[in-house]
Amino acid sequence: MDHPHNREERQAAASEFDLIRRHFQHPERSARRDVVAGVGDDAALLEPPPGMELAATVDTLLAGVHYPESTAPEDVGYKALAVNLSDLAAMGAAPAWATLALTLPAADEAWLHGFSTGLFSLAGEYGVALVGGDTTRGPMTAVTLQLLGLVPKGEALRRGGANAGDRIHVTGTLGDAALALRLLQEGAPVPAPLRRRLDRPEPRVAQGAALRGVASACIDISDGLLADLGHLVEASGVGATVELERIPLSESYRTHAARLDDPHAPALTGGDDYELCFTVPPERAAELERRFARQGWPCHCIGVVEERPGVRCRFADGREYHPAGGGYDHFSRC
Amino acid sequence: MDHPHNREERQAAASEFDLIRRHFQHPERSARRDVVAGVGDDAALLEPPPGMELAATVDTLLAGVHYPESTAPEDVGYKALAVNLSDLAAMGAAPAWATLALTLPAADEAWLHGFSTGLFSLAGEYGVALVGGDTTRGPMTAVTLQLLGLVPKGEALRRGGANAGDRIHVTGTLGDAALALRLLQEGAPVPAPLRRRLDRPEPRVAQGAALRGVASACIDISDGLLADLGHLVEASGVGATVELERIPLSESYRTHAARLDDPHAPALTGGDDYELCFTVPPERAAELERRFARQGWPCHCIGVVEERPGVRCRFADGREYHPAGGGYDHFSRC
Repeated sequence: MDHPHNREERQAAASEFDLIRRHFQHPERSARRDVVAGVGDDAALLEPPPGMELAATVDTLLAGVHYPESTAPEDVGYKALAVNLSDLAAMGAAPAWATLALTLPAADEAWLHGFSTGLFSLAGEYGVALVGGDTTRGPMTAVTLQLLGLVPKGEALRRGGANAGDRIHVTGTLGDAALALRLLQEGAPVPAPLRRRLDRPEPRVAQGAALRGVASACIDISDGLLADLGHLVEASGVGATVELERIPLSESYRTHAARLDDPHAPALTGGDDYELCFTVPPERAAELERRFARQGWPCHCIGVVEERPGVRCRFADGREYHPAGGGYDHFSRC
Repeated sequence: MDHPHNREERQAAASEFDLIRRHFQHPERSARRDVVAGVGDDAALLEPPPGMELAATVDTLLAGVHYPESTAPEDVGYKALAVNLSDLAAMGAAPAWATLALTLPAADEAWLHGFSTGLFSLAGEYGVALVGGDTTRGPMTAVTLQLLGLVPKGEALRRGGANAGDRIHVTGTLGDAALALRLLQEGAPVPAPLRRRLDRPEPRVAQGAALRGVASACIDISDGLLADLGHLVEASGVGATVELERIPLSESYRTHAARLDDPHAPALTGGDDYELCFTVPPERAAELERRFARQGWPCHCIGVVEERPGVRCRFADGREYHPAGGGYDHFSRC
């Protein structure tokens, strides 16, 4: 551990932040039998099982940058873990252990209670143990969560395995979170189903695990479909064409996006979806769709992998779609 | 990955922060054969060897809080890793993989170059691979580094194993960094040997590994000797008496601390030492001292573990020492 340099600051921090730390001493964090030592020593001790690779990911959420200032603390705690769970889902890994670095302007007990409630509820749902952390006082709220998961050796889903001819699929519906944010920024009322997609994204962990051995490549959609599909095809040395009319959209999205200049933009370039985008060899696509249907997991084929680099997006009549507002630059680099 | 919500911010961030990320694409980060996939997928993939436990630690450094604003970027990069290496040293673990979450107000290329140079020089020295990260734009500089290490199963050094009668040892010398900071805060000139201890603490990784199977308990000194020894004895359900005259002090410290109201305070309650404090059963103390002497590792016995809870510190004449400025409260809680 490091420590603040100013003595008064250290002492104030020591008492206030001891209170904070108590919010993270939940029984859930030591619920896993593979946690030899959790919070309370110089480092946590963890016991990875034989035959498994570790998957490691880290994400920072800054108040006002990665979530609206109006977000409930429960939702901030939930989302800090959810976005990392989504990264592990995209690798087909099972989540296991988390560490949390929390920077706060002050020890706000109500905020802390909400935050830890949201975090631990999701951690419990996915069997994640919080095994370590560092709490510091700074001028803003910053949440950095690092998540470790386990995946059978050699079976992780990667970005680089797509081949021309593979079918491109996405889970769930796209654009709901980005549309919610847009309405929020415009001061318009935000329908509950959309706001829920922004504040409480459901990581597709089970879907990711089910894709091991079937999908040729996978990525989670955090920067928007076109940007993230761009990353996938670039890593695979291929390209893609997406059929605009096949993009899965929620009823709420269709209703509220209709009035936008570009009603497609939130779904294609908005980001914050935390759905999986993956490719499947054509001969296995039907089997995959049946498997997802049996589980009740929405999943749609939206296009095809091609030799030609880059991502193209077209209407049913063949016209190419270009998002308004320069979003195309954002993903054309990929 | 998560993403900023404002489109303009996202696009500015995308180009500037792509530059930043390039500073972290050094060959060193993939130098380890146990890194199956590093930066560039949804998560890193790592291969822990059989028979080993993972040791995981995380620390945040905030500019102006955990290091002076005047600190050279090379030293910030160095120190972000060093403080985490020190935590692993205290567990007797060998460092392996790191992830970095970096929040910056702007993409300052010169700062980034210095920071990454300092970070990678130390990473190379200790065989640490940087396997993932997240770069965000925020109102201040915040560096959160998470470090994973490996330790043979069941052999990690813990805080809770000290027994009454054990000898208490510390590596190196204490108080140099805290004295440097104090001089700096007073606007006084800071002698180079002291400043170096503040900016470039040397993690005692080899010493920690050598203590496996010998030390009964171990902790790294980050909050000050009395506070951290307090944590150790509390975790062990014992207490301790420290002999003030036995605390190892550097020549530079003796010279420049002499004029302070309490010349002992930086060494006992200052913090930022990143030395190890450990306990050894009396029958093994001589062997341990010989082993350290052979390696040229400074190490001193400073006191003894006792049944009575709490940490006492006394002069050679038997008087008890109480640090000035309320520092005693800080550690008496432990």
